[in-house]
Amino acid sequence: MAITSTTLVDSLRAGDARALARAISVVENRQSGWADLLKALFPHTGKARVIGLTGPPGAGKSTLVDQLAKYYRNKKENQTVGIIAVDPTSPYTGGAILGDRIRMQDHHADPGIFIRSMATRGSLGGLARATADVATVLDASGRDLIMIETVGVGQDEVEIVRLADVTIVILVPGMGDDVQTIKAGIMEIADIFVINKSDREGAERVEREIRAMQSLATRMPHQINDHWTPPIVKTVASQGVGTEELAEAIAGYEAYLKKENLAFKKNVENWQERLVEMLRDAMLEKARAQLDGASLERYAAEIAQHKRDPYSLVEEIVEKIGHR
Amino acid sequence: MAITSTTLVDSLRAGDARALARAISVVENRQSGWADLLKALFPHTGKARVIGLTGPPGAGKSTLVDQLAKYYRNKKENQTVGIIAVDPTSPYTGGAILGDRIRMQDHHADPGIFIRSMATRGSLGGLARATADVATVLDASGRDLIMIETVGVGQDEVEIVRLADVTIVILVPGMGDDVQTIKAGIMEIADIFVINKSDREGAERVEREIRAMQSLATRMPHQINDHWTPPIVKTVASQGVGTEELAEAIAGYEAYLKKENLAFKKNVENWQERLVEMLRDAMLEKARAQLDGASLERYAAEIAQHKRDPYSLVEEIVEKIGHR
Repeated sequence: MAITSTTLVDSLRAGDARALARAISVVENRQSGWADLLKALFPHTGKARVIGLTGPPGAGKSTLVDQLAKYYRNKKENQTVGIIAVDPTSPYTGGAILGDRIRMQDHHADPGIFIRSMATRGSLGGLARATADVATVLDASGRDLIMIETVGVGQDEVEIVRLADVTIVILVPGMGDDVQTIKAGIMEIADIFVINKSDREGAERVEREIRAMQSLATRMPHQINDHWTPPIVKTVASQGVGTEELAEAIAGYEAYLKKENLAFKKNVENWQERLVEMLRDAMLEKARAQLDGASLERYAAEIAQHKRDPYSLVEEIVEKIGHR
Repeated sequence: MAITSTTLVDSLRAGDARALARAISVVENRQSGWADLLKALFPHTGKARVIGLTGPPGAGKSTLVDQLAKYYRNKKENQTVGIIAVDPTSPYTGGAILGDRIRMQDHHADPGIFIRSMATRGSLGGLARATADVATVLDASGRDLIMIETVGVGQDEVEIVRLADVTIVILVPGMGDDVQTIKAGIMEIADIFVINKSDREGAERVEREIRAMQSLATRMPHQINDHWTPPIVKTVASQGVGTEELAEAIAGYEAYLKKENLAFKKNVENWQERLVEMLRDAMLEKARAQLDGASLERYAAEIAQHKRDPYSLVEEIVEKIGHR
């Protein structure tokens, strides 16, 4: 198949940004040959560090990620960076593509930074899976560091950032009454907390609240972090304040994983999650191959008319597939 | 099976709140007999109006839903109400159960209001599907009106509220720079916009922004709303301001669907979405039945060690199931 030709894989591995962008599109949009491409790329993966960042809208994630990217690009670190910005912005406004262009202008002189926005889940496969697959492509391309940023704090975002080696939860002062709700939902996925815009009033309160929740927990549910208390780093990303401290906290967590021999364990746990997600998608595809759009609509109409119950229908379809 | 005994279904249909709560638990937690229970309940569904409400954290959704509940419970409307509060609060803090109790105290004298919080997706099945199934139980129990409120604006929340007959998107003034992002992601699912806390500074700006986005759109992607411009209702839910106007906007949209003969079409579209979600879950369950936890972990370890590529593995598993 043309798509998995050594040309594309070789160009991508040689650092060709256009080949990289093309490979990502193939994988993200499930274009013909996407699975073969991932198979060809997989042996070249496993070298990149993957950092996930999430937090509520308005927390300043993009600015913080840009600051981190600059930090890791400096002479001392000299790492190549790939950024995946997962953004629920709809195709209705084209926000994601626009966002890419605006951010790329900042870094256009530096081929060492590659940014890709992902706006929507495709018709097949969840956003978490698509993000993981794009990270696989970036990893195979030889990027030293991959940052995945997600807007929001829903279950989707939690799944996306859980696939990272290091997960950073970004909060800001003055989020209003529901800050408790936000924090509760992501408390257990944070390896590191960031309080961004920490020059604003209320930063101390946010810090106290995090500390209070940490002291309440007898232990974190994620056993990997049994002997790790997520540190709280204060930043003002718009002024570059705290970036180095955050990078040190990241390095500190990586050192902890290494010292406790947990990096592999975390990796295995992540792959278990990914396998389930991949199986779910692949099985649905199989079921859909038997059910064209027309029959799906016909079934839906029969259910809406109460001529058929959906629970028995699904059992029948699944049963049929098992016996072929 | 004891669970689908006429006793439970009959008690639930007779308005017994404890039977209702028990049936919801069976369905939500996929306890033994859940599918049979849903099959037995399905013929009794299709009568309730389903209203979905979503918006960013801090928008005052719960307060607004409580106000609407009171409105629909008054003598003029006299409807029974079921509320499903989908909340990403983690089991770590037990926030959802606590929230239920606090909110139930407000309504404890009124058996005509039933509130249930749903915090997490189970190991099988997505949150959107679980919410839809719980709505099915409430519908079968004879509730006239079901309100589904979701915290957040991620893809999950979008899927959950899309299953409603009427979808309400709640915004508030002063959300910060990312309000644009939030609105963009949910612009096309809104049948009605609410600007809550509209006595705050910036309410006009939010309204102007919604209007601007509406005027930019040549037509809404959701064809059901081709001849409908989502109205903007301003509320101050904490003071009960605007509740009646919102109820009128809801009635207005329902009248539009009826007049244009679109209610059935919307119902069919919703069932198509739900069927895909149900198939996805059922097929995964089938795949998992062959793969116990131990072999899943072993596969994950082999992948983490790069002894095996996950893309070929998933193909093999799916292929095998097809040939049994």
